Parts: sequence; C-alpha cells; structure tokens
Amino acid sequence: MTDLNGYIDREMSRFREELFEFLRIPSVSARSEHDGDIQEAAVWVADRMRDAGLSASVIETPGHPVVLGEWKEAGPEAPTLLIYGHYDVQPPEPLAEWKSPAFEPTVRDGNLFARGASDDKGQLFLHIKALEAQLKGTGSLPVNVVMVAEGEEEIGSPNLVPFVESHRERLACDAVVISDSSMFAQGIPSLLFSLRGLAYFEIHVQGPAGDLHSGTYGGAVVNPGNVLAHIVDSLKNDDGSVAIPGFYDDVMDWEEKTRQAIRDLPFDMAEFEAEVGAPGLDGEKGFSVLERLWIRPTCDVNGLLCGYTGEGAKTVLPARAMAKVSFRLVPDQNPDRVGELLRAHIARVAPPEVEVKIEDLHGGRPWKAELEGSFFEAAQAALRKAFGTPPVLTGEGGSIPIVVDFQEILEAPVLLMGFAPPGANMHAPNEWIPLENFEKGIRAVAQFYAELG
Amino acid sequence: MTDLNGYIDREMSRFREELFEFLRIPSVSARSEHDGDIQEAAVWVADRMRDAGLSASVIETPGHPVVLGEWKEAGPEAPTLLIYGHYDVQPPEPLAEWKSPAFEPTVRDGNLFARGASDDKGQLFLHIKALEAQLKGTGSLPVNVVMVAEGEEEIGSPNLVPFVESHRERLACDAVVISDSSMFAQGIPSLLFSLRGLAYFEIHVQGPAGDLHSGTYGGAVVNPGNVLAHIVDSLKNDDGSVAIPGFYDDVMDWEEKTRQAIRDLPFDMAEFEAEVGAPGLDGEKGFSVLERLWIRPTCDVNGLLCGYTGEGAKTVLPARAMAKVSFRLVPDQNPDRVGELLRAHIARVAPPEVEVKIEDLHGGRPWKAELEGSFFEAAQAALRKAFGTPPVLTGEGGSIPIVVDFQEILEAPVLLMGFAPPGANMHAPNEWIPLENFEKGIRAVAQFYAELG
Repeated sequence: MTDLNGYIDREMSRFREELFEFLRIPSVSARSEHDGDIQEAAVWVADRMRDAGLSASVIETPGHPVVLGEWKEAGPEAPTLLIYGHYDVQPPEPLAEWKSPAFEPTVRDGNLFARGASDDKGQLFLHIKALEAQLKGTGSLPVNVVMVAEGEEEIGSPNLVPFVESHRERLACDAVVISDSSMFAQGIPSLLFSLRGLAYFEIHVQGPAGDLHSGTYGGAVVNPGNVLAHIVDSLKNDDGSVAIPGFYDDVMDWEEKTRQAIRDLPFDMAEFEAEVGAPGLDGEKGFSVLERLWIRPTCDVNGLLCGYTGEGAKTVLPARAMAKVSFRLVPDQNPDRVGELLRAHIARVAPPEVEVKIEDLHGGRPWKAELEGSFFEAAQAALRKAFGTPPVLTGEGGSIPIVVDFQEILEAPVLLMGFAPPGANMHAPNEWIPLENFEKGIRAVAQFYAELG
Repeated sequence: MTDLNGYIDREMSRFREELFEFLRIPSVSARSEHDGDIQEAAVWVADRMRDAGLSASVIETPGHPVVLGEWKEAGPEAPTLLIYGHYDVQPPEPLAEWKSPAFEPTVRDGNLFARGASDDKGQLFLHIKALEAQLKGTGSLPVNVVMVAEGEEEIGSPNLVPFVESHRERLACDAVVISDSSMFAQGIPSLLFSLRGLAYFEIHVQGPAGDLHSGTYGGAVVNPGNVLAHIVDSLKNDDGSVAIPGFYDDVMDWEEKTRQAIRDLPFDMAEFEAEVGAPGLDGEKGFSVLERLWIRPTCDVNGLLCGYTGEGAKTVLPARAMAKVSFRLVPDQNPDRVGELLRAHIARVAPPEVEVKIEDLHGGRPWKAELEGSFFEAAQAALRKAFGTPPVLTGEGGSIPIVVDFQEILEAPVLLMGFAPPGANMHAPNEWIPLENFEKGIRAVAQFYAELG
C-alpha cells in the first residue's frame, strides 16, 4: 500500500491537470454539433487507459463510440471486474448562470467547477487513475479488469445494450462497478441500495395549421397551449401523487426496515432547503424527503414551449405547444408500461379538436441492489480506509438505466459507489466536485483492488 | 368625382410602389433593436402626409413618436374628422413559416404579402392616399382633417392616451375614423358594431433558486413547470368558459336582435374551418362561432416557456416557468378589473412553495358602436359606391384599445371601417391584403369625403 498511496501522492498534480484537459472537451451527446468533441473525448479516454497500462480501443456504434479498456493478466482463476462510466455530458445551458465557463475547469475553495466534473467525467477518470496507481505504482493488479466508457449516457444509452449483448464474451465479469452517483454527505462514503428508473416523453399538441391572431380567432379555435396545460396538469393529483390510472400498480412497498434506515440517516433538512433555495418544499403526502427522492416515483415537467416567448405582448393563438415530461420510476415499474399508461391517459383527457403526439425520448428501469458477497465487503473496507469512516447505504433519485441491463445481460451483480458531493449541480449550471473527493476516490478504488488481493 | 377617380387611376401604380417602400421598414415596436426602424417609419409617414398636402410633424413621446398630420382649410364651420392608424407592426416570428420574407413585399395572385400589409400600414396608407386624391385630384376637401399615426399600437399604446389628452384642443373633432379591422367577407364592405377589449398578462413561477437535476431532486421539490400548467389549466372550465370567479359579472347580454343579425350573416363555416386548419373547432358552449368571436370573452395562452426546450432529453427540474396569457373582453368588462380577479384567483390556486409574479403587459377596453348620424350614413354610401354592394354590420374579435379612449377624451363617435380580408394573418406569418382592397379602400375613403361635401 505504500507504493500505491506514494504513487498517488507523487502524481496527484498531474492527475488533476489531466482531468482539467478532459473537462475542457465539450462532449455534449445531445447536440449533433458536438459530434467532433465526442470523438475527441473518446480518443482522449483511450489514450489515458493506455497510459494506465490497459489495452484500449475506440469501438464505433451507430451513435457515439464506446471506449473499451482491458487488462487480463491476473489470469483465468482471478475474478474479473467490469468498470463502467461515461465520457459524454449534459448540455451546459443556461450559460448565463455559470459563474465560470462550463468547459473551462475552475477551482474555487478546493472545489472544481465544470460540466462533467461529477457526472461523470470526474468519476470515470478517477477509476482510470486508480488502475494506473495499481499497475504503475505496485506493478500489478489482483483482478482482471474490463473498462467500458460510453458516450451516450445523457441521451439514454441507445447503443450500449446492443454493444454489451454483442460483446457478451469479451465483457464477461464477476461484478460491475460504477461510480456515477453522489455521496450521502460530504465526507461520508456511500454505497447504493437502489436507483430510480426514468421514462421521459415529449408531448406535442397541434391545433390550427399555423399561428393565428388571438383576437380574430380566439374563442372559436381550441388553443394548443391551453390544451397542453390541461394535459400536463392532469398528470398529478393535488396530494402530489401521479394521477395516471394504473401508475402505482407496479410500485413495490418497501419493508419497514428500509424506511427506518432511511429515517436514521443524518439528513440535514436545513442544508437541503438552502441547496434548493425554493420558498418551500413539498411532495407526495405521507413520505419523508429522502423517501420522496429514493423510493417514490415522480412526474416532472422538464420543458415547455409554445407560441411567443420573447419580449412584450404578441397576441398570437399558437399553432402548437410542446412539453417535455419525465417520470422517475421505482422497483418494479417499467418505462414501457408507463408509456402505455400515459398514452391511454392522454387519449382520455385531450380534446378531439387538436392532434396530440407523444414521443419516447428516454427510458431506464429502476434498480435494487443485493448487498452481500466479497466485492461488496471489499468495497465497504476500501471506502472506510480511504475516507476514515464506514460507508452508509443510500438510495439515489437519479437514473443509470444501464445498471439493470448490465446485471441481466452479464449475470453479474452491480456495485455502485459514488464520489459526487450532494448538490453537485449535475445537469445544472455550476456542476462541481471537491478535489478532495477526486483524490479520495482514486485512493478508495485503488484500495478496493488491494482488498480483493 | 371624375377628377377623384381619374387621379386614383393615374397614380395607382405609384401608390403601390410607395406602399411596398413603407412595408419594407421593419418597424416592430415590441423589440428595442428596431427603434431605428420605428423612427424611419415615422419620418416616412410624415413625408407622405406632406406629399398629400397636409402639414405634418413627428412628435416625440416617452416611447415611439406620433406622426400628426393636419389640413384645416375647410374653415371653422366645416366638420373635422380625425383619422387614426398605426405605423408599427407585430414581430414577424416564426420566420421559417413565411413563404416570402416578412419585410420584402411580394405579390402573388393579386395579393400583397408582408408584415403590416393589413395591420395596419396598408390601411393607414390608403387614408393618406385618399386625402392626396382629394387634395391633389379635386383641389380641395369638404372637411377639416387631423391624422394621428402612432408607433406603439402593437405594444398597447402606452403613450397615446397621454398624447391625446395633452393635445385635446389640437385633436378636437366631430368624428374619429379608423381602418384597422377586417371585412366580413372578401367583396363585402363592413362597418363595426363592436370590438373586444384585451387584458394580457405574463405569469412567472419561480421555484428553486437554480435549475436542479430531476433525478436528484425530483419528488421533493415543487416543480414550477407543473405549477404553471396547474395555474393555466385552472383558468378554464371544461365547457370552454373562463373559470375565474367574477369574470362574467360585467359581461353584457346582447339583445336577441343583435344575435339574430349575427346569425343572418352569410358565414361560411367550411371556409373558416379551412382557414384555421385544425382537426376540429370548439369554444364556449351555447354560442355560435361568430358569437364566440365577437360578443363572448376568451382566455388564450399566447406563450409558454420553461426549462429545456432543445433537442433531446435533458433531465432538469427547472427553476422557473413563464406563461403569456390574454383575455379578450366584451362590453362592459374592464381590463384592470380582470387583472384583479386573475390575481385573486391565482393566489388561491398556486401552492406556497413557489413564488408567482403576474405582470400586466397590455390592456384595452371593449367597445360598442352607436350606428347613426351623418358620418355613419356617408360611410355607408361611400362603401356601397366603391364596392358595389352595401356594407354589413359586424363585430370584431380583435382589440383596438384606443377606440374607447378617443371616444371618451375627444367626446366624438368612432367609425370603424376595415379593409383587411378575412384570414389576413395579422399577427401571424404570411400577412396579406388583396391589392383590390387597397385600391377600393382608397376610393371608398375618398368618396366618403365627397359624400360629406
């Protein structure tokens, strides 16, 4: 271990510089104008895998490429771990709200600000550096490793499942390790017991063939903006629950033990309120904040667009209106089933004087961990050593759709250890990671390998 | 009359060229980047008034200038008419839906397409040309004339009432004539019996201080997009009526005679449906299409904006949401009162976990004509002669807020004769006017002066 931590001590400033370089590449997967940046990021990741001592290749898919790293010199008797992460990032908008540019990594008070700092470039890269520390610092590794870095996580990983299925042999492993989530609190390492799934839709309402004058036509033409508001409002009840018939049919009731464990966590309500900064908080009646975030499904508007949105008063009766609406799902909900229920519901509430189209943009199943076995125990020990305190078990409100797929296709358990701070502004302006988490993350993952030795 | 129509015959092609020149000036009053174009349009109008034989001045206001034209040589015994119009136009967006550019006047099949062709540059300019035909063609005019062309009609005329009040003596008149409305059908000249008013609001809902990740925070934070949909949906009942308590208190019941006259008009439902191009039509239960458009109030969404509206799925819980919502009003509703009722209603339906702000963008009172007297009879005769068929009396769904103000401040009746075609796409892409209407409009207005002689 002296070699390991000594190597990390010596190389840490270079690791940081490399991370900054990675974060400067605006690899936004949702926007086709960034396709070149996505390619650059993929090649960059492959080069760093090679620096670490892995073999690496950039494998094209019908969308953005997968970077595959491999080190299998531990021999056929040693276990194999698959490390998964993603090198693509969310769009940076709204740009005006960033205190420093989204793609210009900036350190303030020991915290690193940049799009992707936590989600997921920072966490993907600390795995590469942990492997480098093992292979260059100690000269070996007690397990075989396969690394999969994809470039489409933020657009729903449309090509990853086909990739995993067609590379099933090459990706065969005994466990999957993913770092794409948050710690429960700064300084408290965390392992996840659940992830929410996602069902994301775009609802389009088309009324008149073109925009009309709201004076000349208003009152005799059904307004798509009013209809869209009616549809969106019909999705929720006044008690904060989702109003789509059948939506809760597949929602599991968690055992009282889990709900009690959630209640026992040192949750700082005042800090959460300050982080959110809203006039108040509310949600589904009968559940605590953490239960609302981890074990209950949601319905959230992600975007609305209709008519004239510029300065001043344009008296237009708009031809169309659009909403992006998404549902966070919990075990055992299924995004396809939620899509069917949503379509049936909207068909009931939308008037026949408009045309409604519902587009599926993104789907991911929820996940529940099995928390036992040697990998889980090694992870617990490594996190305790690196952070000086044992990890807590937490849920995660966000979605990593690929987790369920890895588990099913590769028939291996998935271990989720997150190093993002709470309130990391993933998907929002001013995304950040404490440099301390980046460093302790490297030490924890390197130690994890040591524990398996 | 030979001189009058002969002059118009001879000069018609020049009149058209001048109108094209006028329409090329992008005098969009709602956008500050067009302030220079507004100035250019004002100076241009003053120059054409002078060409016609009027004295003219561009009078600055705290906003865009008023152009004032005068010809008072008919003597103190002759009546005085005030002609009102506006040289500003609506924003041209969405630009992609224009078949030819909004500010490049283009004639197709005898119809002239450009922003402002009907609303109101085309109709303002035909009055200037009718005066030119009288003063240059016949050498005189049987009445005194004051012309007021403003540059803020499309943003609610914030400075016109103060202008009219402070120029009350100079604007003193026996009747006001306005052409800023449509004909009932192409070829059928129309005089208006009513105009709807307008109350236009921007509703802002602020939730969290900044955009949040919908996975990490969704379920425990009240989403401003969902709240906005709830507020907007709460404004209307399922039967198409407005749901704000007290909204109908001041709505007058029209006498059965008027409702019968409306039903007797040769309304072409199939043509209206084709014009709108929606899958179906609907509105307030118990009223015909024309009643919904002319004598019943409305609630229309004019714009919605919230969160991420670009390509793909961004899983954001937005910090804020905005709706532009406007109400068309009928006698005796008042926009200020509607604003009070709206505020009280939203205070009841919005949850305390968000902050809601309601901004007044535009207000105009509804109007009801008094259809009698020498000016009205002269207008009827002139329209019959120019179009070869007597005018019908119609309502107008749109608003010309200044009509009520002129009537009250100047204590003079207002005569509304519109020359825009039905379906003129005022406030929408591909606004147009038949060149025939421009020409017959000039002849009708010139004849109107002749009738008064």
